Amino acid sequence: MKAEIIATGTEILLGQTLNTSAHYITGKLSELGIEVDYHTTVGDNKERLRYIIGQGLERSDLLVITGGTGPTRDDLSKELVAETLGLEMVLDQDSLARIEEFFAQRGSKVPEWEKKQAYFPQGSLVLPNPNGTAPGAILQKEDKYIILLPGPPSEMEPIFQEHVYPFLEKRVPTDSTRMNVRVIKVIGLSEGELEEKLAHLLNSLEPSMTLLSKHSEMHIRLIFRSSDQEKAKEKLDGAELAIREILGDMVYGTDEDTMVGLVSEGLKEYGLTLATAESCTGGMLGEVLTQVPGSSEYYLGGVISYSNDLKAGFLGVQQETLEKHGAVSKNTAMEMAKGIREKAKADLGISITGIAGPGGGSLEKPVGLVYIGLATQRGVEARKFQFHGSRDSIRQLTVQAALDWIRRYMSKCERG
Amino acid sequence: MKAEIIATGTEILLGQTLNTSAHYITGKLSELGIEVDYHTTVGDNKERLRYIIGQGLERSDLLVITGGTGPTRDDLSKELVAETLGLEMVLDQDSLARIEEFFAQRGSKVPEWEKKQAYFPQGSLVLPNPNGTAPGAILQKEDKYIILLPGPPSEMEPIFQEHVYPFLEKRVPTDSTRMNVRVIKVIGLSEGELEEKLAHLLNSLEPSMTLLSKHSEMHIRLIFRSSDQEKAKEKLDGAELAIREILGDMVYGTDEDTMVGLVSEGLKEYGLTLATAESCTGGMLGEVLTQVPGSSEYYLGGVISYSNDLKAGFLGVQQETLEKHGAVSKNTAMEMAKGIREKAKADLGISITGIAGPGGGSLEKPVGLVYIGLATQRGVEARKFQFHGSRDSIRQLTVQAALDWIRRYMSKCERG
Repeated sequence: MKAEIIATGTEILLGQTLNTSAHYITGKLSELGIEVDYHTTVGDNKERLRYIIGQGLERSDLLVITGGTGPTRDDLSKELVAETLGLEMVLDQDSLARIEEFFAQRGSKVPEWEKKQAYFPQGSLVLPNPNGTAPGAILQKEDKYIILLPGPPSEMEPIFQEHVYPFLEKRVPTDSTRMNVRVIKVIGLSEGELEEKLAHLLNSLEPSMTLLSKHSEMHIRLIFRSSDQEKAKEKLDGAELAIREILGDMVYGTDEDTMVGLVSEGLKEYGLTLATAESCTGGMLGEVLTQVPGSSEYYLGGVISYSNDLKAGFLGVQQETLEKHGAVSKNTAMEMAKGIREKAKADLGISITGIAGPGGGSLEKPVGLVYIGLATQRGVEARKFQFHGSRDSIRQLTVQAALDWIRRYMSKCERG
Repeated sequence: MKAEIIATGTEILLGQTLNTSAHYITGKLSELGIEVDYHTTVGDNKERLRYIIGQGLERSDLLVITGGTGPTRDDLSKELVAETLGLEMVLDQDSLARIEEFFAQRGSKVPEWEKKQAYFPQGSLVLPNPNGTAPGAILQKEDKYIILLPGPPSEMEPIFQEHVYPFLEKRVPTDSTRMNVRVIKVIGLSEGELEEKLAHLLNSLEPSMTLLSKHSEMHIRLIFRSSDQEKAKEKLDGAELAIREILGDMVYGTDEDTMVGLVSEGLKEYGLTLATAESCTGGMLGEVLTQVPGSSEYYLGGVISYSNDLKAGFLGVQQETLEKHGAVSKNTAMEMAKGIREKAKADLGISITGIAGPGGGSLEKPVGLVYIGLATQRGVEARKFQFHGSRDSIRQLTVQAALDWIRRYMSKCERG
């Protein structure tokens, strides 16, 4: 099955919107063993979009079109697909009912133009959109498939995962060669360091191995092409084991694992509560921890002690410590961690103080210098880090390092 | 001048690499008034890449090709362009010298295969690459241009900025029609509400007007095509004024303005300090405020009072208030704002308490219910909001609403 992804949207061709949808969909199709030959982006222009749809239907078996399903006159995808296939546009009552409900919840009537979103080329399998008003659709013409999806990733991705993925999975021949992928996630090593450590493994072809730099962590992607799922699993397991033997606990997870997800599971499992004291990250650690629904079970909250007064006032950091060692120091980090643990009555208190830049650095304390403190029942400790990059990078690396410390601490815990 | 951007690279078509180059180049070409009709991505496949190059030369005046200029057998762009145009590949001595120097600096000789990067289609204007070994090139065929660039953005972007941009700037006729763009940024209205308010303006064609939903805000994009810059400014000013007359202070800014940027400038201008007390946003407001370098000038910090104990302990919220009205209530929001303002000795104290979901909602207090409190020298006030969407959406909308309240408050201030 040969696929092609078409994005429509003038905003992409003005350089205002980055097309992340093609990237997302390609990754998913790769998992299914469906090869993607082309990505095309075209503006909301009738002639050009019609031409691209026609060309796609000629050269590919599967066409995924994102964008152009909305309520405005510029939204043309469904209409042009109908025209190309010689189909009528028909009203889908269920979609209309959902659009009415969407507006009713917001206390208003459906404006007339919004109803355009409930019309589809005849014979469409309509895919409900839980996060917006423009549903998706699947059409079949002989042995070719056309999939229409809304443009915004927050609407497109859930529809793809819920409806399109299982639909295609059923239609990919089971004996076809699939790309079996595993991602090994690594923290605390740069690309160069990782390359050096894995040098002899990187030459192996089965599975193939690629290093991907993902901002605050590194990913190792293993690919093994085979129609034999069991053999693939065996091969990938073998490669993962070889990597883990070299990298030890710098491997924190695989595939869908996230650092905050693992920390969250660990805290629940061990029955531990956590509180945070942040300076240069300004609340980012708290924000990341509370991305996880139900985080109130173990996360009590914390203090953003951006100013020295708050470090003293809320956390009890000694004036003397601040004067003698400075706000960005091992001692301040330790007192912050101890302070938040006691004040919040938490099992674990974690603290962050550093220089995120771009200003505020000196020879002695350069931009990227960060101290992280951890207070537990066993006492308090602080560690020094030197990160590099932009303000945003340094803050993200700091948050990831703080979470990683909690993860490592728990890996040595008794279950509570 | 009609342009088309072609990316080649199997890693993009495996979903492993996000194609940011097309986005970057499109933005730059838009600045120059060069319209981009298509983005195409194709793998490192001879037949398909040859076809795409041929198609591009037929339908566009300017072809920008990224990727496929490197040393491996898979790198085919230069060779296929030469083939399509009927040109020989010739050695560029300067490029060879630079490649030799690159390896000499790293203490090694140039491997034979690396020399491929010093060959170009005859007649190329070679563009040196200060950050890698694969140079770029510009070719002209009659009145069409083909630009070849390396794939990695860190190599491509400097070459584009240094060589390609000025090259094209000289060749865009000064009297050519440019796309003049202005973006008006709006907060507190849904797409539907905005569409209704602007219905009569949306039909106007000069400038054209498009609504873009940007998660926690709406953007109105105005485009006026003209070679006359002054006339364009006048037209865009007129349209902006008409929009502002309808929307009033729901328009918060234009173009490069951001909500947090404006709040930050306002706080500095009025000499006000700010402290935050966050519950359901878990630190996101603090995180956003501290994205701005130098934010310590006005942002003192705050409390993430995720648990009720911290609301009472750090902020002095009354146990009675929590029991009688609940943590998510007007009264709690008011006491939180008042508490953080006093404890942090700030001019402004802002508080957030709400239900971000997906769990924790009830009929009386549904998911998306949020109270925001603002304490100032004039007293304390809290407002109720009902947001919709995912946990992440609700949190982002909340932060944006909190920042917007500070912006509106300051717009009624005396300068300090």
